[in-house]
Amino acid sequence: MSDLKSKFLEVYSVLKSELLNDPAFEFTDDSRQWVDRMLDYNVPGGKLNRGLSVVDSYKILKEGNEITDHEIFLACALGWCIEWLQAYFLVLDDIMDGSHTRRGQPCWFRIPKVGMIAANDGILLRNHIPRILKMHFRTKPYYVDLLDLFNEVEFQTASGQMIDLITTLEGEKDLSKYSMQLHHRIVQYKTAYYSFYLPVACALLMAGENLENHVDVKNILIEMGTYFQVQDDYLDCFGAPEVIGKIGTDIEDFKCSWLVVKALELSNEEQKRLLTENYGKSDASCVAKVKELYKVLNLQGAFMEYESKSYEKLIKSIEAHPSKAVRAVLKSFLAKIYKRQK
Amino acid sequence: MSDLKSKFLEVYSVLKSELLNDPAFEFTDDSRQWVDRMLDYNVPGGKLNRGLSVVDSYKILKEGNEITDHEIFLACALGWCIEWLQAYFLVLDDIMDGSHTRRGQPCWFRIPKVGMIAANDGILLRNHIPRILKMHFRTKPYYVDLLDLFNEVEFQTASGQMIDLITTLEGEKDLSKYSMQLHHRIVQYKTAYYSFYLPVACALLMAGENLENHVDVKNILIEMGTYFQVQDDYLDCFGAPEVIGKIGTDIEDFKCSWLVVKALELSNEEQKRLLTENYGKSDASCVAKVKELYKVLNLQGAFMEYESKSYEKLIKSIEAHPSKAVRAVLKSFLAKIYKRQK
Repeated sequence: MSDLKSKFLEVYSVLKSELLNDPAFEFTDDSRQWVDRMLDYNVPGGKLNRGLSVVDSYKILKEGNEITDHEIFLACALGWCIEWLQAYFLVLDDIMDGSHTRRGQPCWFRIPKVGMIAANDGILLRNHIPRILKMHFRTKPYYVDLLDLFNEVEFQTASGQMIDLITTLEGEKDLSKYSMQLHHRIVQYKTAYYSFYLPVACALLMAGENLENHVDVKNILIEMGTYFQVQDDYLDCFGAPEVIGKIGTDIEDFKCSWLVVKALELSNEEQKRLLTENYGKSDASCVAKVKELYKVLNLQGAFMEYESKSYEKLIKSIEAHPSKAVRAVLKSFLAKIYKRQK
Repeated sequence: MSDLKSKFLEVYSVLKSELLNDPAFEFTDDSRQWVDRMLDYNVPGGKLNRGLSVVDSYKILKEGNEITDHEIFLACALGWCIEWLQAYFLVLDDIMDGSHTRRGQPCWFRIPKVGMIAANDGILLRNHIPRILKMHFRTKPYYVDLLDLFNEVEFQTASGQMIDLITTLEGEKDLSKYSMQLHHRIVQYKTAYYSFYLPVACALLMAGENLENHVDVKNILIEMGTYFQVQDDYLDCFGAPEVIGKIGTDIEDFKCSWLVVKALELSNEEQKRLLTENYGKSDASCVAKVKELYKVLNLQGAFMEYESKSYEKLIKSIEAHPSKAVRAVLKSFLAKIYKRQK
C-alpha cells in the first residue's frame, strides 16, 4: 500500500472515533456499536480514488510550498467527506435498485439484522459530513464555502439521480426519450459533479482560492467526468468482465447508456425497431441481439472516435488555463482515466 | 383560515417556484413536473404547527418593534424549511416502517409510479433546505449559524431515529431493554430537537441572538418536547380515535412508549410476564390483555400525575428566565400543548 493510502486510512480511524464520541448525541452502547460496524462496512471498502484525489490535488496546488502534517490531515478529512458522500449514495441507491452485491459483499440492506434500517443509516452517513466539517473547519475562513459546496454538489447529484430514475423506471420503457442531451445531463449531474469537480473544489478552497474564479476548472472537470462515464458505459458492454470485476447489465436494465443513445442515432428504422423490441429485457437472446446490432453499427469505432476527440478537446482546454499548478492538477486527473480498461 | 396561515401558504408557492427554477440544475420538463407534484403531495399537507411557530415566535421576540413584510417572509421561509425537513423524515420513515397512509392519503412510496423513487425524493426534499437558505439568507450575518443549526438538528433527529429503530426492530422484542432513560433519549433526539427547539432557534437567530447564550431555552424546549411526546404515547392508547384522527398501534408495533415503560416500572413479576407474552403482537386478544393491565396499573392516573408535575416544572423554569420576550415565546408554546386531547 502507498504511504499516502495508509496515511489516509489512519485518518479514517481518527474521524470514526470522533463521530462515535460526538457530544451532540448521547450514544447508547448498542447504537455506538451499530454505527461503528455500519461505517466499517460501507465507507472504506472502495477504491478511494475520489478521496485520495483531494490530497493529490492539494499537494500539486501547493507545489514548492511547505505543507504541514496538519494540512495533510485536513486534506484527508475532506477526502473522507467525499467517501462518506459516496457511501451515502450507494447505500440508498442499492435499496432503490434492489441490488444484491456491492464491492464484492452483500449490500448493507441485505444483511438480515439491517434491512430497512439501512435507509436511516444512509441518512446518518450524510449527516456525518457536516459533523466532520464542523469539527475540523469551523474556524477556517472557507468554512461556509465548504458547506455551500457540499450542499450544492449533493443537490446536483440527487437531481441527476432523479432524472435517471424517472426516465429508466417510470417511463414505461420508452426509448424515444433517450437522446445524447438527456444522457449528458444525467451523467453531468449524477456523476461528474461529485466525482470530478468536488475533490478539486475542496483542494482549491483549502488552498485559499475563491471558487467563483474557477468556473473554467469546473467546466473542464465536468467534461472529464462525462468522458469517464461514457467509458463506463462502453466497458459495461465491451469490457472484459475479469478486468472490470463485474458483468454489465445496462442493456437488461434499460439504462440510458451512451451506447444505446449512439445506436439510436446511427440506426435506420428497422434497426430502431430491433432496439425497441429487445432493449431492457433480461432474456439472453434479446441481449445478444442488441449486442449484435452494436457491432453492426460499429459502436466500438464510434467510441474510439469519441474518446480521441474528447481527449484532444480536454487537453486543449487544459493548456489554455493560465495557472501552471491548476494545469498540473487537471492533467493528473486526465492521465488517470485516459484509455482506461477498468 | 387565519391571515398568518394564508400568508404562510403564499410563501410556499414562492419557494416552490424558486426551487423549480433553481439555476444549479437544468430541469427536464418531466423532472420539473415530478418535483412540483412531489412537493405538493408531501410538504404542505400537515398541520404546519412547526413552521407557523417560527413566525409566531419571531413576532413575540420583536414585540414593540417594527417588523417589515420582508422579515415576515423570511420567518415564513425558515418555517417552511422545518416543514420540508419534516416531509423528508416522513417520506423516508414511511418506507422504513412499511406504512400505508399518511395525513389521510396513501404514503408517497405507495403511489404506483413512485415506488422506490420516493427514497430519492426524500433526499431531494432534504436538499431543498440549503437551497432555500442560500437563496434568502446567504448575505445575513447568521447564515453560517443557520446552516450549522439545521445540520446539527438533522443529525440529532437521525440519531434518535436510529436508537428507536434498533431497539424496536433489531432487538428481538426484548422488553428488558426498555427503560425511562431510553424512552427519554429516543424522544429527546427523535422529536424534541426538530419539533420544539428548531423553530425557536430559527426565530432567535433571525432576531440577532447568539444560540450559545440560550442553552437554558434549549433545555426548556427539549423538556416540553418530551412532555408532548409522552402525551402522544398516552393518546395512542387512551385517546379517542375520532378526535386524534387515527387508531393507535404502539402496542402491536412493540414501541418503546411511555406507557409500556411505566407499566414495567409498576409491574410485579407476574404482570411483567403478561407484558412479555403479549406486547408487540398484532393479535387483538394480546392487545386487549395489555390494555387491561394498563388499566389495572392505573396508568391513566400515573399519566395525570406526570402531566401536572411536568407542567409545574416547566412553568417554574420559564418564570426563571430573565427575558420577558423569551418567557412569552415559551409560554405560548406550552399553552398550545398543555392538556391537549389531540
